[in-house]
Amino acid sequence: MLVVMQPNASAADIDKVCDEIVRQGFKPLPMPGAVRTAIGLLGDDAQVDWSYIEGLPGVANVLIVQKPYRQASREWKNENTIVEIAPGVRVGGSDVVVFAGPCSVESEAQILASAHAVRNAGAHALRGGAFKPRSSPYAFQGLGLEGLKLLALARNETGLAIVTEAMDERGADLVAEYADCIQIGARNMQNYSLLRHVGKLGKPVLLKRGMAATINDLLLSAEYVLSEGNPNVILCERGVRTFDSATRNLFDLTAIPVVQKLSHLPIMADPSHGTGLRDKVTPMARAAVAAGADGILVEVHPTPDKALSDGAQSLYPEQFTELVRQLRLIAGAIDRQLAPTPVR
Amino acid sequence: MLVVMQPNASAADIDKVCDEIVRQGFKPLPMPGAVRTAIGLLGDDAQVDWSYIEGLPGVANVLIVQKPYRQASREWKNENTIVEIAPGVRVGGSDVVVFAGPCSVESEAQILASAHAVRNAGAHALRGGAFKPRSSPYAFQGLGLEGLKLLALARNETGLAIVTEAMDERGADLVAEYADCIQIGARNMQNYSLLRHVGKLGKPVLLKRGMAATINDLLLSAEYVLSEGNPNVILCERGVRTFDSATRNLFDLTAIPVVQKLSHLPIMADPSHGTGLRDKVTPMARAAVAAGADGILVEVHPTPDKALSDGAQSLYPEQFTELVRQLRLIAGAIDRQLAPTPVR
Amino acid sequence: MLVVMQPNASAADIDKVCDEIVRQGFKPLPMPGAVRTAIGLLGDDAQVDWSYIEGLPGVANVLIVQKPYRQASREWKNENTIVEIAPGVRVGGSDVVVFAGPCSVESEAQILASAHAVRNAGAHALRGGAFKPRSSPYAFQGLGLEGLKLLALARNETGLAIVTEAMDERGADLVAEYADCIQIGARNMQNYSLLRHVGKLGKPVLLKRGMAATINDLLLSAEYVLSEGNPNVILCERGVRTFDSATRNLFDLTAIPVVQKLSHLPIMADPSHGTGLRDKVTPMARAAVAAGADGILVEVHPTPDKALSDGAQSLYPEQFTELVRQLRLIAGAIDRQLAPTPVR
Amino acid sequence: MLVVMQPNASAADIDKVCDEIVRQGFKPLPMPGAVRTAIGLLGDDAQVDWSYIEGLPGVANVLIVQKPYRQASREWKNENTIVEIAPGVRVGGSDVVVFAGPCSVESEAQILASAHAVRNAGAHALRGGAFKPRSSPYAFQGLGLEGLKLLALARNETGLAIVTEAMDERGADLVAEYADCIQIGARNMQNYSLLRHVGKLGKPVLLKRGMAATINDLLLSAEYVLSEGNPNVILCERGVRTFDSATRNLFDLTAIPVVQKLSHLPIMADPSHGTGLRDKVTPMARAAVAAGADGILVEVHPTPDKALSDGAQSLYPEQFTELVRQLRLIAGAIDRQLAPTPVR
Repeated sequence: MLVVMQPNASAADIDKVCDEIVRQGFKPLPMPGAVRTAIGLLGDDAQVDWSYIEGLPGVANVLIVQKPYRQASREWKNENTIVEIAPGVRVGGSDVVVFAGPCSVESEAQILASAHAVRNAGAHALRGGAFKPRSSPYAFQGLGLEGLKLLALARNETGLAIVTEAMDERGADLVAEYADCIQIGARNMQNYSLLRHVGKLGKPVLLKRGMAATINDLLLSAEYVLSEGNPNVILCERGVRTFDSATRNLFDLTAIPVVQKLSHLPIMADPSHGTGLRDKVTPMARAAVAAGADGILVEVHPTPDKALSDGAQSLYPEQFTELVRQLRLIAGAIDRQLAPTPVR
Repeated sequence: MLVVMQPNASAADIDKVCDEIVRQGFKPLPMPGAVRTAIGLLGDDAQVDWSYIEGLPGVANVLIVQKPYRQASREWKNENTIVEIAPGVRVGGSDVVVFAGPCSVESEAQILASAHAVRNAGAHALRGGAFKPRSSPYAFQGLGLEGLKLLALARNETGLAIVTEAMDERGADLVAEYADCIQIGARNMQNYSLLRHVGKLGKPVLLKRGMAATINDLLLSAEYVLSEGNPNVILCERGVRTFDSATRNLFDLTAIPVVQKLSHLPIMADPSHGTGLRDKVTPMARAAVAAGADGILVEVHPTPDKALSDGAQSLYPEQFTELVRQLRLIAGAIDRQLAPTPVR
Repeated sequence: MLVVMQPNASAADIDKVCDEIVRQGFKPLPMPGAVRTAIGLLGDDAQVDWSYIEGLPGVANVLIVQKPYRQASREWKNENTIVEIAPGVRVGGSDVVVFAGPCSVESEAQILASAHAVRNAGAHALRGGAFKPRSSPYAFQGLGLEGLKLLALARNETGLAIVTEAMDERGADLVAEYADCIQIGARNMQNYSLLRHVGKLGKPVLLKRGMAATINDLLLSAEYVLSEGNPNVILCERGVRTFDSATRNLFDLTAIPVVQKLSHLPIMADPSHGTGLRDKVTPMARAAVAAGADGILVEVHPTPDKALSDGAQSLYPEQFTELVRQLRLIAGAIDRQLAPTPVR
Repeated sequence: MLVVMQPNASAADIDKVCDEIVRQGFKPLPMPGAVRTAIGLLGDDAQVDWSYIEGLPGVANVLIVQKPYRQASREWKNENTIVEIAPGVRVGGSDVVVFAGPCSVESEAQILASAHAVRNAGAHALRGGAFKPRSSPYAFQGLGLEGLKLLALARNETGLAIVTEAMDERGADLVAEYADCIQIGARNMQNYSLLRHVGKLGKPVLLKRGMAATINDLLLSAEYVLSEGNPNVILCERGVRTFDSATRNLFDLTAIPVVQKLSHLPIMADPSHGTGLRDKVTPMARAAVAAGADGILVEVHPTPDKALSDGAQSLYPEQFTELVRQLRLIAGAIDRQLAPTPVR
C-alpha cells in the first residue's frame, strides 16, 4: 500500500498516518518527494483498513498493492483449477467445453429436441432456464420445479450434464438436487447471501459476470463462494453495459486472458447474451475460443421463431453444428481440443 | 411498435410478420419506404411478444413505443405519489427530506451520537446499515439484528424515522419489524425474488439504482414491488459505473428530472455513494436538491476517522449542519422547503 | 511512483528495475512485502519514463503518484485563475456567468433577436455556432465567416461578449479576429495540433470535455494550451457517453468539484448538450450552479421550433428568463452572485 | 421514421406534426394506439429534419428508421469493398492482412530492424508513428518528416507497404507523399476538417474508431471521407472506454460482425491499443481474426524494453512470429487465408 499525501500536508499529518499504520501492526516507510510525500507500508496490505487511513487529514489517496481476494488468486493456487461438473466434463484443463440449449425450458418435447440436437452437434452440457430473471414482472418467468424435472429427464436421455440458473436460496436447493452445475446470473453476481448459500451447497457454480462488474468484482464474488469451502467455481464473461446500442451488451473477451493471469479458476464465455443477436453469436463464439476461453455457453433452440424468450439470439441447430466444427479447428490452432462427447 | 424490415426483405417476409402480428391479436400497418418497409402495429404493444417477431426472417429491428412498466408510469397515475415513511416524513410532495447517518451501525454510543447530531442539524430520518453488502467476504458485514435494535433505540430517543438495508428475505422480515423503510441496495436492484418479497411486506421501500441500471431498468424493478400490491416505493439515484476513476461512481443527477417525467414515484439522491469522497458530498447534495430531488441520503459520522466502513465519504457533523442550511435556501429558490423536523 | 513486482519476480528482476530507476536519475526504495516486493521511487516522477519500466520482466504494474499535467495543477498555481473574456465578464472568481444563445447562427434577424433576448434575461455572453461540427457530412454546417460577422454585429448591438467554436486552424484564426473567446468542442478536445494553435493565439479558450475524456485527459488538453503560453483557459463539462439512452449524454456535474480541487482553472457546465432535452436543461443548469460551476452555457432560441439544429434542446426565451431568476437565488445560497450585466 | 406522441397530446398537436411532415415533402401516417398515437412517415427519412419535429409540442420521441450515412452502407453498395493499399496488399477480400511495427519511428536502425523482423514473420505492411498524438504535451511527439523518410527507406528495403498517422492537414499532405495509407487516429475520428482533407487526397485511409464512438459515429466519419470522393476507407476497432481499469480500453470485437452487416467497408482490429498489455495482444489478435476481421494492426518492437513509447504493449519479434503461425491456422478454420508476403 502507498499512502499519497497532499502537497500541502503538514509534518503532523504525515506522523498521524504513520502512527495509524503502526497501530494496525504494520511498518510505515515515508518517501519524501519533490512535491509531496508518499508513505509506503510493508506487509500484507489486504489486512489493512485503508478506508480509515483514506479519511485522515492531508491524505490525497491510497494506492492498494495487494488484491482484495485471496483464494481466487494465482498467488493462493498457481495451477489451474479443473471443475468436473459431470463425469468427463472437465472445465479448466486443455479441453474446451460447449454448454448449449434453449434460453428457457418450455416443454418436454422442446427440451428433449434441444438436448438431442446439441448433443449430436457435439455439446457437453445442456443449458436451459427453469427459473428466469426477467426485467419485467409480466414476462414469462420459467416453469420452475417442473422445468428442473424436464432437464433431469433430458440428462437421462442424452448423458449431457445439466446447467441451470438459481435466483434465490430455495431455488438453489432445488437446482442442486436436479442439476450438475448451479448458474448464478449476472443480476445476482453481487447477491452475497445467495453466493454464501451456494458456497455451502458444494455443487459446481457457474458465476456470470455482472453487467457493470470489474474483473476485481467478479473475483471477489467468486471469493464469497470459495470462502464457504466450495472450490468448484467457473467464471463466465457475458458482456457488460456500454454506450453503443448496436449490440445488447459489450462482450469483453479480453476478460478471458485478464482472468487467466490473475486467477486459477476456469473462465467460459457466453456469446449469446454477450451480443444478443443471432448472426453475431457464431463469430464471437469463435473469437472466445481463440482468446483462450475454457468453453462457451450458447443458446440453441430447435425452432427459434417459436421460443418463449430470447428467440432472436438463439442459433438454429444447423448453425450450431457448423459452429462446433469451426471451434474444433480453432481449438486445435492453439493446442487445445474440444472435450469428448459424454457417454449416454 | 414498429417492425423495420431489411432493405432486401421479400414480400413473403413482410407477409409473415403481418401474419404473426394478426396471430397475436393486433392489426399490422405496412409502410413501404424508399429503401425498406416498416410495419406499424396498432394497440398496446406492451402485450406483444416482440422477441418472437425480432427473430423472423427479413426483420432488421423492432422499435418499441410503449414502456414495459405500467404501474410505475405517469400514464398509470398522473399525480405524484407521496410516501409517508413515518408521521410527518412525507417523500414526494413539495417537502424536501434529508436522511442522514453513518454507513454502518457500530455501537449504541455511535448510533445515538449520530442520531442526535443529524436530528439537531435538521435531518428527518436516520440511515445506517445493520446488514452490509460488502464486495469482500472478509470485510465488516454489519451487526445484524443487534444493529436493528440499536436503530430502534435511536428512533425512540430522537423521533427520527429509520431507514436500513435488507439483503435477503429473512433480513427483510427483520428490517420490516424494526425500521420504517426497507432499503434495497444497488447490488440487489435486480434481485427479483427479494423485490417480490418486499412487495408483499407492504412497508415503504427505498430502491437504489443499480450500478449499470438504465432508468427503464430501475422503473421495471419498482414495478416488481408495485405489482405485489405495495405502492410505497421511493427511488434513489446513487451513481453509475463510468470510465473515470476520479470518483467512485458517476452521479447521474439528470436521472431526477428524467424519472419525474416518466413516473409518479418520488426520487431521492445519495451523494455519499454517488461520489465516494467527502469533499464532493456537499456540492453534489446541493446540486441534487437544485435538480429537483425529493430528498437526499447522506452519510454523517460523529467521528469519521474512526468509522468501520466508508469513513472517507462521511461528513463531519458540522459540515452536515452547514449543508442543511444551504439546502434550505436552495429548496426555497425552487419553491420547495425542507420538511419539518420530526417531533420526538 | 511505485513499481509493484509480480509475486514470483526474481531478485534479478528487482535489481533490473532498481538499476533502471538509477539510470533515469532517481533513487529506488525496495519494499519487500509478505507476497511481493514493491519498489518506491523518490523524486518528481512526472519526469520518469514509466512505460519503459512497465515493460520490464517481473513488473506487475506501476502506480503513478504525480499528475502528468503541470501548469494546469493547483500545485503550480494555488489561487483560482480568473479569465476575463471581455471587460467585466470574469470567469473563475465569485461571479457566476451565463453564456447563452442559439446552437447555430442562422440569420441576422435570428442572432439579433437571440442576443437581445438573452441580454434582457441576464446573460453575459452570446454563444452561437458559425462553424458546426456535425456527425453527418450532409447536415447544416454553419454560415462560416458570415456567421462570425453576424456575431460581431450582435456584440455591437448588445455589449455581450461573443463565444464561438473553431474546428481547425484557419477557423481559429477567424474566430480570434471576430470573437472574444474561442470554443474548442468535445470532438476536438484531443486535436492536439489545434490546441497548440489556439495556445499560440493567446485569446481566451473555452475547452469542452470530450465524450470519453477523464478529468485527467481534460487537464492534459488544457496543458497543451497553457504550455504554449496562453493562460486563459476555461474548462467546460458537457456530458460523457453512457449506457442509458434516456438522455443524449451523462452530464457529470461531479466533475466540477473534482476539477476545482485539482486545478486553478475555471470550470463551466453546458446543460443543453449535457442532457439534450429542453425540459432537463433548467433543473440541470440549477444543479450546475449549486455544484459550484463558475458559469453555464445554455442554448436559447427565439423560436426553437424553427431552429436549424438542436431545436429540441433550446430553451424558449421566457424559460431562460425564469432560469436566470432561479440561478440568482441559488448563487446567493452558496455566497456567490451572478456577474453584472455588461454595459452596451 | 416514427413520431411517438405523448399520451396526453392533443389532436391539435398531432395535426401540427402531420402538417410539418407534409411541409417537408413526406406523407404522414397516424397510428392511434391504446395509450398514445404514433405517426409514421413514408419515404427516405434520412432527408427529414427530425430535430425540428422532436421539438414540437406533444412529441414524446422520434424513432429513426433510416441510417444517417449513405455511401458507407450496404444499401449503397452490397459487395465488399477491397482497398489495395499497395500492389498485392488487398484489405477486405478473403485475405487476412497483418500490419505490424513499432509504436514510433525512433531511428534508422530501429525501423529497419523492425521492418525486417515483421516481414520475415509474415507481415504485409509496416506501421510506425512519425507524428504521435500524445496526451501529454511533454511526451515524445515523434520524429515528424524525418520519421516519414525512414519509413520510406524501410519500404524500399523490404517491400512492405507503409501505414502511418496524420494529425493535421499539413501532416496528411506529407504522409500522402511518403506512405501508402494515411492513418486517422482515435482522437481525431471526429476531426471533420481533417476527414474532409484526406477525402480529397484520395490515398487509402485507415480510420480508427474513437474511444467513445458508436458504430454509427464511425460510419458517419467514414462518410465524411467517402463523400469527398475517396472510396478507399479501412475501418479499425481499437477499444473503447470502459469502467474497468484492468485493461487500458475495452476491445470491442463484436464491432467486426456489426460493421460487416451494416457496411461494405473493410474492418481491421488493433489488439495492441485495444488491450494495452503485451500478454493480452496474442490472444486478442487471434480472437479478432476468428471474429472475422479483415486484418490486424499489432505493435512489434525489436527491443520493447528500449521503446520510446508504448513499450509495455509491444510484442517481441519471436512472439509475433508465433502469433502469425496461429493466425494462419485460424484464418484457415474460417475459410480465409493470410495474404501473400509482398515481393521486395
